[in-house]
Amino acid sequence: MLTEAAGPIARLMQELGKLPGVGPKSAERMAHHLLACSREDVMALADALRSIKDNIRQCRQCHNLTEAELCYLCADTRRDSATICVVEQPRDLMALERAGNYRGLYHVLHGRLAPLDNIGPEQLTIDSLVQRVRQGGVTEVIMATNPTLEGDGTALYVANLLAPTGVKLTRLARGLPSGSVLEFANNQMLADALDGRRTF
Amino acid sequence: MLTEAAGPIARLMQELGKLPGVGPKSAERMAHHLLACSREDVMALADALRSIKDNIRQCRQCHNLTEAELCYLCADTRRDSATICVVEQPRDLMALERAGNYRGLYHVLHGRLAPLDNIGPEQLTIDSLVQRVRQGGVTEVIMATNPTLEGDGTALYVANLLAPTGVKLTRLARGLPSGSVLEFANNQMLADALDGRRTF
Repeated sequence: MLTEAAGPIARLMQELGKLPGVGPKSAERMAHHLLACSREDVMALADALRSIKDNIRQCRQCHNLTEAELCYLCADTRRDSATICVVEQPRDLMALERAGNYRGLYHVLHGRLAPLDNIGPEQLTIDSLVQRVRQGGVTEVIMATNPTLEGDGTALYVANLLAPTGVKLTRLARGLPSGSVLEFANNQMLADALDGRRTF
Repeated sequence: MLTEAAGPIARLMQELGKLPGVGPKSAERMAHHLLACSREDVMALADALRSIKDNIRQCRQCHNLTEAELCYLCADTRRDSATICVVEQPRDLMALERAGNYRGLYHVLHGRLAPLDNIGPEQLTIDSLVQRVRQGGVTEVIMATNPTLEGDGTALYVANLLAPTGVKLTRLARGLPSGSVLEFANNQMLADALDGRRTF
């Protein structure tokens, strides 16, 4: 039977369907939206896609994504260069920046240790972090990996590597998320909240 | 303050956010997914976008979207060329084709009459439809516009224009709930609507 299954529209739907959170129905809706858009609008999206691969690289110092040699955070002389916050992904960095109360620098690992997925230390930017701390001028390294089994494992591994340098090693506080209700908190959250209790 | 607000990543998020059903959070998630993708995967999406604007045009006969002079439906000699089903959008045609019980041809209006949005008959492919019917060989025109006020209005307008040609004019059965849109109707609803079509 003659179909359009191999055509550009089907191909676009297929590519859109690979995006996170986009199923076949959403992909079809997006494709038809794009078909109805002006050529300029569609090309703007295509060029933006091309641009992230042509122009984005890792910051020489912290491995955040950037267009320049140094990212806008490492280039900002008003940031406290004595503190490094270690995160798994650039999106974690962005989330922390939105929180707005951190004034130090970052180090992006670009992943976490996951032996089951064959992701070892050499796939991450751990060597670069150790060198950065050894060069001196750093007084505190905050481990801000995800509070998961793999995130915790990665934090522990990095902390052990950095321990001989004598730098102060901390990790993000664990407890109840602000705005949540105790009733629905799971056991681990409650245990963390109890362990980490503070005096008024 | 130095920010990345004007950079390629922010631009990609902005462009992704223009897609239907994609908010700022989804756009950010998609952008970071694409940043982590291989260059090949991202270029495949960019090329698919480019391709729909470079290679897709309207079928000379029915105005369906196609790569060729004639769409795959008009080019299929096994389809019943004596019956034309008039739809608002290519996605409506695709929905009817998925229902699977229609063997005739189509005519895509590329919109509906909407005086409030300044969409009149000259913005649609109505002239082309009238010419197609006047050339002869067509025995039935099925109006399959959306069961909405504007869809019904468009159907009535087109039916009045075609009435002098003596062609049999039908419309989809009211198995479809009024006020809904064809695009999201399921196969059984669409099949019922085709089977139960009535004369004007």
